[in-house]
Amino acid sequence: MSNILKNIRSPRDIRSLNISQMHDLAAEIRRIIIETVAKNGGHLAPNLGVVELTLALHRVFNSPADKIIWDVGHQSYVHKLLTGRFDEFETLRQFGGLSGFPRPSENVHDAFGTGHSSTSISAALGLAVARDLKGGSYSVIAVIGDGAMTGGMSYEALNHAGHLKKDLIVILNDNEMSIAQNVGAMSGYLNRLRTDPMYSKGKEEIEQLLRKMPIGPTLLRLGERLKDSLKYLVVPGMIFEELGFFYLGPVDGHDLKAIDTVLQRARAIKGPVLVHVVTKKGKGYQPAEDNPDQFHGIGPFNVDSGQVIKNSSAPSYTEVFGNTIVRLAAKNSKLLAITAAMPGGTGLTKFAKNFPERFFDVGIAEQHGVTLAAGLSAGGYHPVVAIYSTFLQRAYDQILHDICLQNLPVTFAIDRAGIVGDDGPTHHGLFDYSFLRPIPNMIVMAPKDENELQHMLATAVDHSGPSAVRYPRGAGLGVKIDDYQKILPIGQAEVLREGSDLTLLAVGSMVSRAEEAANLLAKWGIKATVINARFIKPLDEECILKYADRTRKVFTLEEHVLQGGFGSAVLELLSTRGVNRVEVYRFGIPDNFVEHGKHSLIMEKHGLSVNQLVRKITEMCGSKGRLRKLKAVSD
Amino acid sequence: MSNILKNIRSPRDIRSLNISQMHDLAAEIRRIIIETVAKNGGHLAPNLGVVELTLALHRVFNSPADKIIWDVGHQSYVHKLLTGRFDEFETLRQFGGLSGFPRPSENVHDAFGTGHSSTSISAALGLAVARDLKGGSYSVIAVIGDGAMTGGMSYEALNHAGHLKKDLIVILNDNEMSIAQNVGAMSGYLNRLRTDPMYSKGKEEIEQLLRKMPIGPTLLRLGERLKDSLKYLVVPGMIFEELGFFYLGPVDGHDLKAIDTVLQRARAIKGPVLVHVVTKKGKGYQPAEDNPDQFHGIGPFNVDSGQVIKNSSAPSYTEVFGNTIVRLAAKNSKLLAITAAMPGGTGLTKFAKNFPERFFDVGIAEQHGVTLAAGLSAGGYHPVVAIYSTFLQRAYDQILHDICLQNLPVTFAIDRAGIVGDDGPTHHGLFDYSFLRPIPNMIVMAPKDENELQHMLATAVDHSGPSAVRYPRGAGLGVKIDDYQKILPIGQAEVLREGSDLTLLAVGSMVSRAEEAANLLAKWGIKATVINARFIKPLDEECILKYADRTRKVFTLEEHVLQGGFGSAVLELLSTRGVNRVEVYRFGIPDNFVEHGKHSLIMEKHGLSVNQLVRKITEMCGSKGRLRKLKAVSD
Repeated sequence: MSNILKNIRSPRDIRSLNISQMHDLAAEIRRIIIETVAKNGGHLAPNLGVVELTLALHRVFNSPADKIIWDVGHQSYVHKLLTGRFDEFETLRQFGGLSGFPRPSENVHDAFGTGHSSTSISAALGLAVARDLKGGSYSVIAVIGDGAMTGGMSYEALNHAGHLKKDLIVILNDNEMSIAQNVGAMSGYLNRLRTDPMYSKGKEEIEQLLRKMPIGPTLLRLGERLKDSLKYLVVPGMIFEELGFFYLGPVDGHDLKAIDTVLQRARAIKGPVLVHVVTKKGKGYQPAEDNPDQFHGIGPFNVDSGQVIKNSSAPSYTEVFGNTIVRLAAKNSKLLAITAAMPGGTGLTKFAKNFPERFFDVGIAEQHGVTLAAGLSAGGYHPVVAIYSTFLQRAYDQILHDICLQNLPVTFAIDRAGIVGDDGPTHHGLFDYSFLRPIPNMIVMAPKDENELQHMLATAVDHSGPSAVRYPRGAGLGVKIDDYQKILPIGQAEVLREGSDLTLLAVGSMVSRAEEAANLLAKWGIKATVINARFIKPLDEECILKYADRTRKVFTLEEHVLQGGFGSAVLELLSTRGVNRVEVYRFGIPDNFVEHGKHSLIMEKHGLSVNQLVRKITEMCGSKGRLRKLKAVSD
Repeated sequence: MSNILKNIRSPRDIRSLNISQMHDLAAEIRRIIIETVAKNGGHLAPNLGVVELTLALHRVFNSPADKIIWDVGHQSYVHKLLTGRFDEFETLRQFGGLSGFPRPSENVHDAFGTGHSSTSISAALGLAVARDLKGGSYSVIAVIGDGAMTGGMSYEALNHAGHLKKDLIVILNDNEMSIAQNVGAMSGYLNRLRTDPMYSKGKEEIEQLLRKMPIGPTLLRLGERLKDSLKYLVVPGMIFEELGFFYLGPVDGHDLKAIDTVLQRARAIKGPVLVHVVTKKGKGYQPAEDNPDQFHGIGPFNVDSGQVIKNSSAPSYTEVFGNTIVRLAAKNSKLLAITAAMPGGTGLTKFAKNFPERFFDVGIAEQHGVTLAAGLSAGGYHPVVAIYSTFLQRAYDQILHDICLQNLPVTFAIDRAGIVGDDGPTHHGLFDYSFLRPIPNMIVMAPKDENELQHMLATAVDHSGPSAVRYPRGAGLGVKIDDYQKILPIGQAEVLREGSDLTLLAVGSMVSRAEEAANLLAKWGIKATVINARFIKPLDEECILKYADRTRKVFTLEEHVLQGGFGSAVLELLSTRGVNRVEVYRFGIPDNFVEHGKHSLIMEKHGLSVNQLVRKITEMCGSKGRLRKLKAVSD
């Protein structure tokens, strides 16, 4: 194995390499990425697919003067390795280490921060316009997958870019996948381009050929129209041409020389250019080539076997969701399921297999997915829309305007809510309570454990209006899973224990922490009531008022930002009902974006570990003496 | 003038009319719409443009069995007149009367509620899928403008519909406009279709012609590829064909017979069909044909002159924004402006004229507009993104993920915030505090009057991070407009008067009401402190705490929902700082969607008129005797 990478301190250093050294470097990059992701987890298949493309980009273009924007950004590992971050690469996705996504604050070569899909062309157009306004001359390149192209904002940006005619290069990284198999008519269109018999012919060559063609008098009658038609004949990427882009490709994205050539050409062309590059997700690592979906984003795994190292025997919330929704659908033929390009991630694979007619993968198109659900619901069905908390932000208006305003029965299954860990600020799901709670007609729940998730889903699909169930990433608590699903009374909390000194009013993942905290507090003579709120909206007003009145001290606990969250809902309730003289202390995430790092570490950083909760509570209760003892015990 | 309309109780009744009666009916519909909108205000030009199209739709299809979905929905007046709502039509957009948009709760012919752009294809696809799941046979028709087609979710839906291949008809109502002149490369494409020499030729006719063409041996060598090319030649709507739609058109949208024919054809075709109909906005009313932008949505006007009846001499907030932004841009060359298809509505026309290079109309594409701003900002500029409160909901994720996470200097000018009046629930801007406030790095302001708006805009564009200024629809208070713009200290409130009994902590439009209320309270011996909060985020913590502590009674006032709004921010502050024993009463909009109606009426309905404020405050202060006297005086 070569040892070139350690000498690459900047992209400039790769320009002097010969083709054989480039191939060695590509192999070395693959090895390091596989090893690092096997240890730290991360996005493997997308990065293995863009090794040659990234090398070619950094040979042809001059970053950071030229701006490369990575759509979604989880395929930026190769870029990171080539831009002076080789030494730190082992810290990838570790707390305080390299981010798994491009971040301008991390490195000058990261021209724009990404994490969510389909933003790159908009951002690139902005940088191109800014360049022209200030009279600069740099190139701007957006690298976007065919999956991200299913997102509507990529089309909005193409439409605008084609209109403004700025110099701008869009690299369409076509791997026939979003995360799972890509869907949609555009995907079919790209497939036709890829399999076109003219595939390998240069545009000029075909134009030559056409010019030599005998054109009969009838043909001539068609005049200009024919010329346009011939343009279609020689230009396979006509959709892009019609939108004002010069189309180049398709080109083999693992042929270094070919990409180099096409990028040189693209750089020389005035106006917007779209380069269609065909790559293979997971390229160079057999398990990832075979299962690109599984190896898209993955936890630590064994490099030889490709087996993921599982660190919990408890089923994940995602699995419980997947199993429950299949059970519920077996009993209720009106139940449908929708995913935005994440059948595996959301746990809907089993549903898709059992009920193919009732399952819809809309592509990376959360807006359409939600309004499609509205249409299905208006047509008499009950769709379950499974979207991660952070991506549901994309469909905020559709939830409000198309679902809730019409009070349509649709269930939102909000996975990856709360701190998601290593993916960091672009992926934490910390805003859903505050953006859903103000919407009239919406019901919002969060289960205390994976078993309660079952019952909440049954409750949601039984409800005649919109509802949302939000649950965390990863393993459940390992509790017993009931073999039935029961309907919970809407807006009813669960009192887990009664104590006269204070009330711990917790929701979702914080309920078990509240119980643990109550156990510790009990050892020091502090008697806590513990309430599992279950419903963020509507709140169990009478229950909360009763214990607030009884204990006069209420601690709210949520894995969510404090602004407008669950604790705020409790404050609103007390204020509305004229209850003051109750002290409320809200545990949650303060008003800062949250970094990447292990879940437990991030929770600790925000004072949300059980010991920290207990310390704060005893402090608030004025039991300094007790606190010291407690600290001694817990240390 | 004919008198047919009063006998049209259902769409069935128009099927027996002959062509001459149809023309009479069309004229009658236009007259009634012009008269009603001249009186009530509303969307004029869009409705005049779809008279014949709507008539043809209701002749060819069988609503409500067949489902017609009106994208955006402001062009549904003709549809309302033909579906049993003629008698009530004079109540259009009046409180308790007909909505200006389709509403399933209003009438069974309104298959799906709309108001925001680009949702119709998604909803229609949902209804088509639902139909096939339950074995129904109805037609589903989405009517969408070329403006709404610039919205990305329409493309997401086309992409998915082309993939699913369901029977579905999309009517592209192409009037070369969104609200203003339409923008984007797709618009150029549609223009090429419209002006194509083959325009009027039938597809079959051209195919005939081609079959007779002598094909030379060189051409034959190109084999299958040529056949595809010829397909391009005969099919002008190739983008739609590539996306899986059968393209029909373009057809003259004012030729009843032609539309009738094309719709019959569309109905008979299996799979998704796109019918390209060319219409003229404002058709049949000269002032609207001449100024379709002005007559898109309009207040009461004089039918003969086309002059809008102005009922306030004070400049509108929109005008003040428009003037201010031009002044600021003259001094600051880094300042840019972005609109999503609303140069007129947002007040940016003057900016566009003065600084064409620095002005960007992105089309109805709020998502792209916001991320474009992020790119421009990353490129060293300070964009001002002017989007109505309700439409900014479309870009929630982009604000959070692309602007605030990167802490980029971008200013959001949020017009039409609060109760917008006659447009109703789809257009009220009642959620912006609660969706913006939880986002880290974001600063949120609201001016007490149109003069303060100036200073807030200066403050915002001077700020080195993201900020938002939200202001109401319509006329300002008529205050003196300073001839300078000053920068306000971030997070500093303004104490307008001091009183020891209670604190009125108001924001935005509620500040002047709070002052009026304080005047009335003073008459009854109640001394109120009045604070203009100015900043929803960050709050002026010390100021609020000082007066909360001093008066022990705080009333928060906001024209916004109570959940997660300004009042909640105040509750959070008091809780965080351990201040209890302060009574807080929050005035605002409760947890229901708000109907359409005059601003004052809707405010009254929610207890937000000055008299109602005073009544409630005196009640809360336990001054029942005073209240009665006050009531006697105010009645």
